[in-house]
Amino acid sequence: MSDHYRIYLEEDQIPTKWYNVRADMPEQHDPLLSPATGEPVTVEDLKPVFCEELAKQELDTTTRHFDIPKPVQEFYKIFRPSPLIRAYNLEKALQTPAKIYYKFEGNNTSGSHKLNSAAAQVHYAKEQGLTSLTTETGAGQWGTALSMAAAFFEMDLTVYMVRGSAEQKPYRKAVIETFGADIIPSPSETTEVGRAILKEHPNTSGSLGCAISEAVEQAVSTPNCRYVLGSVLNQVLLHQSIIGLESKAAMDSIDEYPDIVIGCAGGGSNLGGLISAYMQDTLKGSSDTRFVAVEPASCPSLTRGRYEYDFCDTGKITPLARMYTLGSQFMPSADHAGGLRYHGMSPILSKLYDDGYVEAVSVHQTKVFEAAVLFAKQETILPAPESAHAIRTAIDEALKCKKTGEEKTILFGLTGTGYFDMQAYSSYLAGEMTDYIPSDAELEAGFAQLPNVEAIRSSK
Amino acid sequence: MSDHYRIYLEEDQIPTKWYNVRADMPEQHDPLLSPATGEPVTVEDLKPVFCEELAKQELDTTTRHFDIPKPVQEFYKIFRPSPLIRAYNLEKALQTPAKIYYKFEGNNTSGSHKLNSAAAQVHYAKEQGLTSLTTETGAGQWGTALSMAAAFFEMDLTVYMVRGSAEQKPYRKAVIETFGADIIPSPSETTEVGRAILKEHPNTSGSLGCAISEAVEQAVSTPNCRYVLGSVLNQVLLHQSIIGLESKAAMDSIDEYPDIVIGCAGGGSNLGGLISAYMQDTLKGSSDTRFVAVEPASCPSLTRGRYEYDFCDTGKITPLARMYTLGSQFMPSADHAGGLRYHGMSPILSKLYDDGYVEAVSVHQTKVFEAAVLFAKQETILPAPESAHAIRTAIDEALKCKKTGEEKTILFGLTGTGYFDMQAYSSYLAGEMTDYIPSDAELEAGFAQLPNVEAIRSSK
Repeated sequence: MSDHYRIYLEEDQIPTKWYNVRADMPEQHDPLLSPATGEPVTVEDLKPVFCEELAKQELDTTTRHFDIPKPVQEFYKIFRPSPLIRAYNLEKALQTPAKIYYKFEGNNTSGSHKLNSAAAQVHYAKEQGLTSLTTETGAGQWGTALSMAAAFFEMDLTVYMVRGSAEQKPYRKAVIETFGADIIPSPSETTEVGRAILKEHPNTSGSLGCAISEAVEQAVSTPNCRYVLGSVLNQVLLHQSIIGLESKAAMDSIDEYPDIVIGCAGGGSNLGGLISAYMQDTLKGSSDTRFVAVEPASCPSLTRGRYEYDFCDTGKITPLARMYTLGSQFMPSADHAGGLRYHGMSPILSKLYDDGYVEAVSVHQTKVFEAAVLFAKQETILPAPESAHAIRTAIDEALKCKKTGEEKTILFGLTGTGYFDMQAYSSYLAGEMTDYIPSDAELEAGFAQLPNVEAIRSSK
Repeated sequence: MSDHYRIYLEEDQIPTKWYNVRADMPEQHDPLLSPATGEPVTVEDLKPVFCEELAKQELDTTTRHFDIPKPVQEFYKIFRPSPLIRAYNLEKALQTPAKIYYKFEGNNTSGSHKLNSAAAQVHYAKEQGLTSLTTETGAGQWGTALSMAAAFFEMDLTVYMVRGSAEQKPYRKAVIETFGADIIPSPSETTEVGRAILKEHPNTSGSLGCAISEAVEQAVSTPNCRYVLGSVLNQVLLHQSIIGLESKAAMDSIDEYPDIVIGCAGGGSNLGGLISAYMQDTLKGSSDTRFVAVEPASCPSLTRGRYEYDFCDTGKITPLARMYTLGSQFMPSADHAGGLRYHGMSPILSKLYDDGYVEAVSVHQTKVFEAAVLFAKQETILPAPESAHAIRTAIDEALKCKKTGEEKTILFGLTGTGYFDMQAYSSYLAGEMTDYIPSDAELEAGFAQLPNVEAIRSSK
C-alpha cells in the first residue's frame, strides 16, 4: 500500500481508448424509439440532431473500445490525468478503518468531469464540417465545459441555460461568455417550444428537459448546426469511461481494488463513467464490487421512479428512451444540486440497476451539505453540491465500517467544485436550507403523463 | 525535451526545506524599525504580534534552508506538488518560437498559492499553544487559504476583509465561513483604529493597509492570539520558496532553464517564491535569467514608488519597513486585481529590484483582461486577474520573440483562478472596464505622508 495522498498517472498513461460497457452487458437496454412511429431509431433518424459519428456511437452495442481521436487526446492533456486521492484526513476525522479514495475531476475551469465528453463532441462536430452547436445547461458545468471546448476548436455555440440557474448564478453565465458562447435563459421566446412553455407557465424557472427541447429545436432548424448533450446518452457514458479507466489504472498501481464504488447520479454521466472499468470485471464475473448511485431525495428517479419509455425532454420532441423516470413533465422543486434535477436516468444505468448490478440510495439535501462542509474542512476541496451526494454516502459507508470494523476500500467520484454554489452553502450555514421530498401524489401526476408507446404505434 | 503538457513531481519530490534567499544576497535590506523609537526591531519586539518561530524566521538573514515541519509537509501533500504546465496551445495561438511554461498554484480551494504560507503559519501558532489568529484579506484568497488551514489545524480565526471586496464578493465570504472563520468587513466598529478611520472616511471601501491595522489591534489585545500576514513579510517569501523549488525541480527533469521568470507583484509573496531557486543561481553568478515583476498601472509601487521607510499599514501601528512604497495612506482606486492593491512591496524584492536583480513593468487593466481571455480560451484555465498580469507580460515577451525569432524559455507564475472575479470579467466583456492611472499629484500626496525616521529617532 502506498502512503501517497495523490496518485497522478503519467501523461502517456492517459487512456487512448474509451470503453463501451454495452459490449459486455448480458442484455442491452431497450432501443430508443421514434416519438412519431414508436419504432426503433436508426443512425439516419438521429443524423439531423446529432453529428454522424456520435449517432453511431449512440447506437453501437458491440464495439468494446473506441479510439480516442488524436485532437481529443491532445485536449485531454491540458487537464488530464486527473488525480486519484486518498482521503487520509477524512478517514482520520471519521475514525474509520475503511480506506477512502476519490477521483477528483474538478481540476479544470468547467469545475467538473463534463469536459471529457465536451471535447469529444465538439471535435466530431468540427470534423464533420459543422459550424455551430446548441446545448442546454442546468447547474452550468456542462455549458462551461462545452464553451471551453468550442473556444478551443473554434466552433460557435448557443447554450440554453435553465432560467433559475441563470438567475441564481450570474457568474457561471459570465464564465461561459468569457469563453465566447451565447447564453439564452430557458424557456425563451427564441423557440416555438419555449414560447409554448412560457405561455402555459409564464413564471417558470425552467428545467433541463425544457432547455433540451429548445436547444434541439434550434439545432434542427439551423443549417450546419447540431445538438449536443452532456449526460444521459450512451455516447456520453462512453466518453466518460475515461474516469473509470484512469481510476482503475491508478488503483492498480498501488494494488488496490474498491469494494464499493459510489457516484452521484443525475443523468448518469459521471457514475456511468466512474464505474465503467470495474463494471467490466463484474460483468465478467471476476469481481463482486458494489456500485452505488446516489440521488437527491428531491428528484429520486431510480429510487422512486418507474422503468418506462419516456421522452428525454419536456417539449416531447426527442426520441423515447426506456429508463427510470419521474415523467418528462416532472418539475423538481428548486434544489441546490442543479446537476441532479433531470427527470430520467441514463438507459444503460437504468438497465444495470434494473438487472441488479447497481444499487441506488437517495439522500436529503441538508445531510449532503453537512457532508460537504466536513469534507471541505478535512480535504481542503470545496465540493460541488452534486459531488457531495457521493461524499454523503461514502461517509455513511465508512461509518458502517467503523461499527463493523471492516477495512473496506471505498472509491467515490468527486465530480466537481462548488465555487459557483456558494448561495447554497450560505443557505446551509445560515440554517435556512430545507429538505424537499416530493409526495406520492406529485410523483403519480408525473407518471400519469408517461407516453403510451402502444398507442403511438397503433395510431401510426 | 519533453512533449508533456503537465509535469507533476512525485509526492516524495516535494521539497522538505524552504529556501531563504537572504542567505545568498550580497547585501541585506535595511532592518525593520520600531515606529516608537526608530530602532531596529528584535524577535522580542515582534513576539506580541507574531508567534515566536515566525518572528525568528522574519529576522533570520543567515539560515539558508529551514526544515518544513512534518505536519506542514503532510498538509502540503493534500494539494502539492502543483503542476508545471507547458503552454503549447498559447504558443501556437501566438505563433511564437518561445517556449512558455507556467507553474499553476490555483489547484486548491483557496484558488491561489496563499495556502503554502497559511499552512506554515497556522502550524507554528498551534505548536506555540495559541488558540486564535487574526488576519486581513483583500481579494479573499489569503483569507480563504488561512481559513482552510485553521479548519484543518483547529484554530479560531478572524478575518478582516477589505469592505469593498466583501461587498463585491459575497461568495468569497461564504467560502471562508464554510471553513468556519469569522469575517468582519473592514474598516469596522470592532477596533479603535477601525472606528477612527470610519470617523474620518465614513464611506470608505477600505484598503489592505487598514484591514491590517485592525487585525493587528485585535491580535495584540486578545490573550493567546497572534496576527498573521499573507504577503510582504520575509517569512512569507520563505514559505513561498516552495513554488520556485518545485518549478526548478520540474524544469530540471526536462532539462529546461528559464531565460525569463515573470510574476505578478502585489506584496511580493508569489514573485518572491517563484524566483527563489533561480535567484540563488543568479546571486551565485551561474545564471543570467531575467526576473520581471508585473504590477498594475493603478498601484505602481515598484515602477513609480519611492524606496523609503514606511508603515506596513494605514493605521501606522506596524513596524517601519524600507521598501518601494506609494505611502501607507495611498488609497488605490477600485481595481479588479484586489490582490495587487497594496501600497508597498516586500523588502526583499524591493532590495533585489533596487540592486538591479529584478526588473519591473506596470500594465493596464484592460490589456490584462485581454490576455486573461486569450489564455483561458487556449489553456482552458480561467486565471485570477492578479495572475493575468503575469500572463500579459509573458505574452508580450513571447511576441517579442516572434519578431526576433529568439527561442527563449519563459516561465511565469499562474498564482490562481478567477472564479470569484467574474464581475470583473463581465465588466471587461461588456466593454465597461476602464484603465486607471494615478496622477503624479496623487502619488506626491502619498509620498508627503511618508514617516520621517530621523524625527522619530530624535524625538525619542
